[in-house]
Amino acid sequence: MPTAAANIGVVGLAVMGSNLARNLASREGNTVAVLNRSRAKTDDLVALHPEAGFVPTFSYEEFAASLQKPRTAIIMVKAGLGTDAVIDELVRVFEPGDIIVDGGNAYFPDTIRREKAVRETGINFVGAGISGGEEGALLGPSIMPGGSDESWVTLGPILESIAAVAEGEPCVTHVGHGGAGHFVKMVHNGIEYADMQLIAEAYDLIRRGTGRSPAEIADIFAEWNTGELESYLIEITAEVLRQIDQETGQPLVDVIVDQAGAKGTGAWTVQTALALGVPVSGIAEATFARSLSSHPEQRAVAAHLPGPEGEFTVDDVDAFIEDVRLALYASKIVAYSQGFDEIRAGATEYGWSIDLGAVAKIWRAGCIIRAQFLNRIADAYAAEPDLPALLTAPYFAEALSRGQASWRRVVIAAAQAGIPAPAFSSSLSYYDGIRAERLPAALIQGQRDFFGAHTYRRIDKEGTFHTLWSGDRTEIPAVDTH
Amino acid sequence: MPTAAANIGVVGLAVMGSNLARNLASREGNTVAVLNRSRAKTDDLVALHPEAGFVPTFSYEEFAASLQKPRTAIIMVKAGLGTDAVIDELVRVFEPGDIIVDGGNAYFPDTIRREKAVRETGINFVGAGISGGEEGALLGPSIMPGGSDESWVTLGPILESIAAVAEGEPCVTHVGHGGAGHFVKMVHNGIEYADMQLIAEAYDLIRRGTGRSPAEIADIFAEWNTGELESYLIEITAEVLRQIDQETGQPLVDVIVDQAGAKGTGAWTVQTALALGVPVSGIAEATFARSLSSHPEQRAVAAHLPGPEGEFTVDDVDAFIEDVRLALYASKIVAYSQGFDEIRAGATEYGWSIDLGAVAKIWRAGCIIRAQFLNRIADAYAAEPDLPALLTAPYFAEALSRGQASWRRVVIAAAQAGIPAPAFSSSLSYYDGIRAERLPAALIQGQRDFFGAHTYRRIDKEGTFHTLWSGDRTEIPAVDTH
Repeated sequence: MPTAAANIGVVGLAVMGSNLARNLASREGNTVAVLNRSRAKTDDLVALHPEAGFVPTFSYEEFAASLQKPRTAIIMVKAGLGTDAVIDELVRVFEPGDIIVDGGNAYFPDTIRREKAVRETGINFVGAGISGGEEGALLGPSIMPGGSDESWVTLGPILESIAAVAEGEPCVTHVGHGGAGHFVKMVHNGIEYADMQLIAEAYDLIRRGTGRSPAEIADIFAEWNTGELESYLIEITAEVLRQIDQETGQPLVDVIVDQAGAKGTGAWTVQTALALGVPVSGIAEATFARSLSSHPEQRAVAAHLPGPEGEFTVDDVDAFIEDVRLALYASKIVAYSQGFDEIRAGATEYGWSIDLGAVAKIWRAGCIIRAQFLNRIADAYAAEPDLPALLTAPYFAEALSRGQASWRRVVIAAAQAGIPAPAFSSSLSYYDGIRAERLPAALIQGQRDFFGAHTYRRIDKEGTFHTLWSGDRTEIPAVDTH
Repeated sequence: MPTAAANIGVVGLAVMGSNLARNLASREGNTVAVLNRSRAKTDDLVALHPEAGFVPTFSYEEFAASLQKPRTAIIMVKAGLGTDAVIDELVRVFEPGDIIVDGGNAYFPDTIRREKAVRETGINFVGAGISGGEEGALLGPSIMPGGSDESWVTLGPILESIAAVAEGEPCVTHVGHGGAGHFVKMVHNGIEYADMQLIAEAYDLIRRGTGRSPAEIADIFAEWNTGELESYLIEITAEVLRQIDQETGQPLVDVIVDQAGAKGTGAWTVQTALALGVPVSGIAEATFARSLSSHPEQRAVAAHLPGPEGEFTVDDVDAFIEDVRLALYASKIVAYSQGFDEIRAGATEYGWSIDLGAVAKIWRAGCIIRAQFLNRIADAYAAEPDLPALLTAPYFAEALSRGQASWRRVVIAAAQAGIPAPAFSSSLSYYDGIRAERLPAALIQGQRDFFGAHTYRRIDKEGTFHTLWSGDRTEIPAVDTH
């Protein structure tokens, strides 16, 4: 048995795990024990990176013995049943006060369940969302840990040592208890779906509206990346659009099959929002746009459905491009506002204390949606922690006000031209819905009372009421029992 | 103990259960045993309806003894734990071959679970969706039963005797095994959400665009109800809009608080569609529109967000109203097409054999979305049972083609005027998406490959590929392991 030489361990040495282990080992003060199901990966990692000073172990007993107390281990295996198996093994060899971290992409209800079960053994369980992909894991990810305050004492400094840094601050914070970390990571991914779909719509509108080539549109995105849209996703969009396929000499984007895949976190975000009663229409439209694209059998038969008459052309190309930029920014504000609504609703539902401004700050670097923009969100919550809707904060309200005419023109152009812009349109509908003085929801309540006696409330007095629709149509006070 | 005089029993005598029991008793050949948790409701029902010839029972033992074999009981209690408790009692007193029907609004995974558990006792369990509200239960609902073929032999004639009748055919069919019935009922309700939201948007656009009063718009809906939009929901919309509040003399729709409630079936439909990868954007937008309306704290702070400059007025009022009618019809086609996609995907996922045309037929009467329109859906599936997308059937393709210019004008008017039309806009985006020759989903795949090495496929050859974005940017064959 080895001596307890390591202050942190990693279980699971696929690309994400290996990179995270190397990241940990590269920081002052860390000694990293590693363990993998198959011996070969451990041997390879240790041989390839002698500079890391890894402590290789080949059983859970050896792994536990190599760790200083409180033992701290990060599980980096594919989310699912494998995670439960590894947790069981660690619980077997760990002791009360030790810390088990799941760094995989777990669905937050699983994390809530696991945290509860592990807590009963006296061991701490932390579900930590880690964003930034393989490169982020190696060089500095954005980390969203949940779990107990006790675990944070030991874990905090270690995670701070490996996280990305934004304006001098590490992109990690103790998000909240229990499953709060994986919940926030889920919403991060949902927002990422919306962001990507909005960018895709912007590209499509400019391409089909102005005939600009992918390379020319790459320049537009690169230019946008110097302004208020500055973000990793805008930056890589320019890179992808500029890429030329070696085989055909065509823009790579024209060679890629136009069916977008998904790993399910967008769907989780929307499913959870539906359960919480939070309208996240931008994320939903983005998720549905991917599934629509991935039904080639339907698209084949629908291809003959007619579009609008005539060609779509834009008169003033520069003005149109600027309209698209402003529409993208406005729609993005809506998507983030909806996402933060979901985090707040989740915190209320599950009893987590989540600092929304801190969440915005840890997304400023390391993760896929990293952007300057997140500083503005942090500012908004710093100024008003209980802000009921992010898009009403002065900075965003001003941006929406400045952009709304452009936004409307772009949605109109899409409808006119027959170009699908579900996320742009949906965000605008949300904007016009939330600011509406009066919504036709009153009619829906009337219909529900008519066919299901679901009752309604009145604007002029307290209580619930029902009209005797199949009787004499008088109104009676009602108790809503449906 | 009574003799086995009844051929059917009802457990749970709240309004829906009492009405269903009365409906059953009113049909030739049925004798109905009734049981309720509290004795008083049973006594009241029997006393109030001597003509029904009910067999009152006051314990599960008595209830079972009063039923001919195979015993057949319909549970009419609020969906949830109460259902499980009643099932347990019935399983205790019933025998193999008997039939337990859950006529409540159960979530289909619960029905799948219950069917499996009850089947092990040799008793049949049938989850049956029942639509039509209190009046439907009494006079003839649309019924969507799942369960075994064996149960259908006994149950079929009984349910056929009480169902609504459309063009001589009873609105009930054996939808499929296991949870198929409640699944189809769930999607029915999802479609109902979309239908109602589309109607609400049509009303709002006409009202704000033309200044017509609710009573005048009631006339428009009544007129629409004589044409291709003919349906129960259009009919009752006219009734609701015509209603004058007795207290204030105002149109009732202006007195009702504009916050729409929901009982969760719309959310279930969208959550399930997300799991199945089926884009049901119309139903999602309708569900979100209700939740948006029900956040007064957000609407209050968002009310100051600016709308478009100037007043919205329509030049040619009649033409605009006709545009709205056609937009409503086109959007409705999209919503139903999405809903039927979900049923087909659910049938594939859960191994149910569901006749989509038969589903359309049993919705023609008795249920909330009943409409002439459903005959066209039945026709479409009769002509082509494996139709990949309903909206591509000749009849619907023609309607969309005829309506699309109007549809676009309405979406444009809404964006221009600052009137939220999320379901209209979303349906149009879906239409333009599914018919698009090329979608910007290719860019999304490129982004995913860039930041997550998620790989992509090429239009010109088989396989999956990855570009070495952080390397020399060459392309390599890849195995998608993410």
